[in-house]
Amino acid sequence: MELTEKTISSEEIFSGRILHIRRDTVELPGGGRSFREVVDHPGGVCVLALDDENRVLLVRQFRYPYEKVLTELPAGKLEIGEDPEQAALRELREETGAVPGTFQSLGELYPSPGYCGEIIRMYLARELTFGEAALDEGEFLNVERMDFARLVELVLSGEIRDAKTIAAVLKAKLLLGI
Amino acid sequence: MELTEKTISSEEIFSGRILHIRRDTVELPGGGRSFREVVDHPGGVCVLALDDENRVLLVRQFRYPYEKVLTELPAGKLEIGEDPEQAALRELREETGAVPGTFQSLGELYPSPGYCGEIIRMYLARELTFGEAALDEGEFLNVERMDFARLVELVLSGEIRDAKTIAAVLKAKLLLGI
Repeated sequence: MELTEKTISSEEIFSGRILHIRRDTVELPGGGRSFREVVDHPGGVCVLALDDENRVLLVRQFRYPYEKVLTELPAGKLEIGEDPEQAALRELREETGAVPGTFQSLGELYPSPGYCGEIIRMYLARELTFGEAALDEGEFLNVERMDFARLVELVLSGEIRDAKTIAAVLKAKLLLGI
Repeated sequence: MELTEKTISSEEIFSGRILHIRRDTVELPGGGRSFREVVDHPGGVCVLALDDENRVLLVRQFRYPYEKVLTELPAGKLEIGEDPEQAALRELREETGAVPGTFQSLGELYPSPGYCGEIIRMYLARELTFGEAALDEGEFLNVERMDFARLVELVLSGEIRDAKTIAAVLKAKLLLGI
């Protein structure tokens, strides 16, 4: 079956501080027309940072859409024109103070492909040294360290539910055999 | 650090066919005020369906926000008032024709906790029998089967990037030892 949809026109619906929404008119594979509502997103990064004792740096923050505190890897959005690896290093340092000696990719994640084009680049950071954290204004979070093996348990038990955290932790476990 | 944010007021910004956006005024932990832009979502489901030869049912469909065809587990949104497990069985049958003899949870996934409250329930389905697929109008997809071990390889290599597919496949691998 032919699957490709072609854009006919695009209309901005909402441009907020975080969310940017458009509604596009598309030509369907069968030849008919439909609408696609899309959340535009600048892209994000997250970092699985392992210290010398195989403990992971985690942030706990209130996630307003769920009205609860979640445990996640340090993460953030790309600034305009920012290189993803630089953004990941910046977010890790701002949120936790950590600066890694080695840094490698864990691949890309598409969180919600039905309606959002966000790409999250995932990284593994090791050989950490620590300076001062520097949170953005209005950013509230607590940093914790957790044994990697315990974090894997919490992912497998379903207690950790954040997509990027699940993906990066389980990819690291299987790729590195840790 | 205290992390909880309290809702002061809520304003509907956009109510489309798929996306529903609100902007809430919140009281921050420090006492100041800010806005939170939120995508409301009815919740979703996905199914890792394994046949008797350990092959996984996959759907390939055009994902408009990325302008490309992605390979994902069968999935869909909850209908109003629908039980998640029933929704998962419905989506699996509609998209692939499969009806499982055994069905179990693989936990929940939060795709984008910064701005969306979507919960994706993940399931594992086995002992499959097959009837006719019945796609929704305007739904275009191709169904494939892939060896589970090959799918794990594609997840680990970064070729498969869909969050729910990565999470369900790697959780199944580690939980079931397959």
